[in-house]
Amino acid sequence: MKQTTTNTAAITIFGAKGDLTRRKLIPALYNLFIGNHLPAICTIICVDFMTVDENEFKNDLLLGVNEFSRSGKADPPTWSAFANKIQYIQGDFLNEETFINLKAKLDVFDVKNKQRSTRMFYFAVSPKFIEVIAEGLYTHQIANQLTKDRIVVEKPFGTDLQSAQKLNRYLRKRFEEKQIYRIDHYLGKETVQNILAFRFANYVFEPLWNRNYIDHVQINVCEQVSVGKRGGYYDGSGALRDMIQNHLLQLLCVIAMDSPPKYEAEAIRNAKVNVLKQVRIYKESQVFTNVVRAQYKEGSINNIPQHAYRKEEHVAKNSTTETYVAARLFIDNERWKNVPFYLRTGKCMPKQTSMIVLQFKDSPNRIFKDDIVPNRLVISIQPDLEISLLFESKVPGLHMKLKPVEMDFTYNQSYTEAIPEAYEALLLDVLNGDATLFMRADQVETAWKVVMPIVDAWKKNPSKQLLYYKAGTSGPKAADDLLKPFADQWFVV
Amino acid sequence: MKQTTTNTAAITIFGAKGDLTRRKLIPALYNLFIGNHLPAICTIICVDFMTVDENEFKNDLLLGVNEFSRSGKADPPTWSAFANKIQYIQGDFLNEETFINLKAKLDVFDVKNKQRSTRMFYFAVSPKFIEVIAEGLYTHQIANQLTKDRIVVEKPFGTDLQSAQKLNRYLRKRFEEKQIYRIDHYLGKETVQNILAFRFANYVFEPLWNRNYIDHVQINVCEQVSVGKRGGYYDGSGALRDMIQNHLLQLLCVIAMDSPPKYEAEAIRNAKVNVLKQVRIYKESQVFTNVVRAQYKEGSINNIPQHAYRKEEHVAKNSTTETYVAARLFIDNERWKNVPFYLRTGKCMPKQTSMIVLQFKDSPNRIFKDDIVPNRLVISIQPDLEISLLFESKVPGLHMKLKPVEMDFTYNQSYTEAIPEAYEALLLDVLNGDATLFMRADQVETAWKVVMPIVDAWKKNPSKQLLYYKAGTSGPKAADDLLKPFADQWFVV
Repeated sequence: MKQTTTNTAAITIFGAKGDLTRRKLIPALYNLFIGNHLPAICTIICVDFMTVDENEFKNDLLLGVNEFSRSGKADPPTWSAFANKIQYIQGDFLNEETFINLKAKLDVFDVKNKQRSTRMFYFAVSPKFIEVIAEGLYTHQIANQLTKDRIVVEKPFGTDLQSAQKLNRYLRKRFEEKQIYRIDHYLGKETVQNILAFRFANYVFEPLWNRNYIDHVQINVCEQVSVGKRGGYYDGSGALRDMIQNHLLQLLCVIAMDSPPKYEAEAIRNAKVNVLKQVRIYKESQVFTNVVRAQYKEGSINNIPQHAYRKEEHVAKNSTTETYVAARLFIDNERWKNVPFYLRTGKCMPKQTSMIVLQFKDSPNRIFKDDIVPNRLVISIQPDLEISLLFESKVPGLHMKLKPVEMDFTYNQSYTEAIPEAYEALLLDVLNGDATLFMRADQVETAWKVVMPIVDAWKKNPSKQLLYYKAGTSGPKAADDLLKPFADQWFVV
Repeated sequence: MKQTTTNTAAITIFGAKGDLTRRKLIPALYNLFIGNHLPAICTIICVDFMTVDENEFKNDLLLGVNEFSRSGKADPPTWSAFANKIQYIQGDFLNEETFINLKAKLDVFDVKNKQRSTRMFYFAVSPKFIEVIAEGLYTHQIANQLTKDRIVVEKPFGTDLQSAQKLNRYLRKRFEEKQIYRIDHYLGKETVQNILAFRFANYVFEPLWNRNYIDHVQINVCEQVSVGKRGGYYDGSGALRDMIQNHLLQLLCVIAMDSPPKYEAEAIRNAKVNVLKQVRIYKESQVFTNVVRAQYKEGSINNIPQHAYRKEEHVAKNSTTETYVAARLFIDNERWKNVPFYLRTGKCMPKQTSMIVLQFKDSPNRIFKDDIVPNRLVISIQPDLEISLLFESKVPGLHMKLKPVEMDFTYNQSYTEAIPEAYEALLLDVLNGDATLFMRADQVETAWKVVMPIVDAWKKNPSKQLLYYKAGTSGPKAADDLLKPFADQWFVV
């Protein structure tokens, strides 16, 4: 469990001029600051290649907070107090001087505070810079205190099993595994965290949470947005690598894992990696019968025209990159044998929705005349944080007529406290040295092992069974067919 | 299941000037009429001892509808159409002529409609008149068509096992069992009916519905009202006979019964009677350790002073009649062995509440630091029709902190249709020949077998362990002690 926050902290962000810093990291740190969750003595060192005027830089961060923070517009004196903690270092990550400057600033901070601070180094950079930054930190002995210094690495963590293994090997030469925080922000979301509480702090769900009672599971992460300006990166990646390998497989772990013996980082990560190890690995032919890929064509979303993926900026005109994946996976263990886990993600879909549905089996008991809709447990992550159970109930009236109704629990209605953003929870965890919600090397690699046969089959057959769907629709019909005979359609969108 | 309603019906109410007729029966029949549930050709023959002016009589019934009907004030032309169906017969139940007149009116109705109507005879009378009315109907061959004629008998059905058996024997000499509808209006309530749907049309509850997962069950029927004007009857009866023997034991059956093979009167009643047969029968000494009785003293309810039970009208000054019972019962079968069923009912309690709580066992899994409140399923019958599940959830925020929350389903919010009154459902069932929600002779007798040791022990020791509670409070402390070690207090009131 979490300890109290550290006394002094120095947070370094590499890639401080990037989108992630402005939209997520600074708003999250600012909210932690407002909530008194940051250590009283704290500095935020922003490193990037560009030369900036420090005041303009901070003002741009303020605009980011005003636009993206859940707490709304920043209060000027509060912002000012926060902004005072921010320093900027202009520097090329390939340049030694950058790290010499950084080391100097960190040392000044520590000397001034008469203690060695906890240091977090956030790699908000393109993957190609990970190794060089790690090397700089290592060479200059900036992150060499095992218990105090932590690096945070964003996805994509490798582009395939081999590159992920290579990166892990590399990082572990420079740092201890326990210093490395591989972030998957999905794991920081409230509802995702709540799934563990829901499953393991209650006695009414776990007895049903297995192949005897569950018919199949649907895990949806549907995006309404197009690839937008990310075409350059995305066209070399695709939905399988961008979403399934990380977010969706992590959700699968949270749903399918056995109870850890303790609520503690290693125990939880062991339980998760065990699930991944038991996911059935497909042969090439099985890939084409169990995984559907598709790319969006011209269409419209909310009546706004959307051009085809191949016409997006920085996307190859004849690209075969998938923007949509629907996959049927199996977990070959005692709990889940033969229960299909359906994973689906896509861009340019009708709605922004993340939702997990556990479909229960049909009751063997049939004493009523009416058709019965089997029970369904719905865990909604986006847009609403909500858990609901669909069950059959008598329609009020003079006859025994049945109708499915919902019993539900909605976070927003039930709590007045604002719900923290995933990045707030995760950044605080890093400061507190709690790796529970972060990916261990073996988790990342095992997830790659699950998707590699798919990556390989598609690489070998770049156009085979590549389908298309109109932007603003919920994907190709083949994705529905995948559900048969378990369901007729996806419960979402 | 229910058939379509009969073509023509003649409904006879004995005791037409009584409270039940005015408050419940006529408003229910009127609502069935508005909803087009009554047969198009229908007459309501009201029989009572008093001489009345027929118009005044009907006007008094209208006032009753306006006051007590869930549909509010009657629409004058609609009431008029309904009132045209009502006829009044002045007659002593002890007098042959009453039945001769009744037979004549029924025959006229049938001749006019060229068919033998379905006949319902509702005994809204004091128990002492049941036999004489049955005799009159029998002698004059008024209710002699096995498939068309039904009698409806209100509780109390006997005052002990012997008298109930005697009454059953008597009635079965005059009628077939399938003609006899023993009413327990609790079984007509929507939520009570819904319990069967909830349990047997869903697959997620039944696997948990047993001694492996359920710690104990609480069945509460708390009344805020005092004995009021019913002292004459009540003082000879008491809460055990007035409430436990019928309503609460019936609720226990609905919760504890096994699934019937079909949703059909005989199958359901067999399943219920099986539960009653397995309720542990107490020896005299066990009565005093498992059953608490009490009588209300002076107090106040909602700030209105309430005098002691012994000062109520028609109540003996030294009465030892209980107005409150809390009992711990066990069902000795495979499903429920050693799971206590706590039943509680009382008058002059703080609120009017009928509620069933299934308390689940504590999870054997303890991976979280926080104390865990075990799951609880609450089926609320009164004042709100509601089903809710208490479960542990993560408190939104930056730490893994747990808090019990509720997932709920509320009838009123979920349905725009008005919910029919119990008497509407039950009267329609009688017309349709559906006895599912009525008590078979063996149910009544077996229920008496369960309570007889208590009746006898109290009769033999009229003052032993008779406790007192202030009107407006939730009963004596001994009723809480009964729950130990399973719970510290009753979840209700």
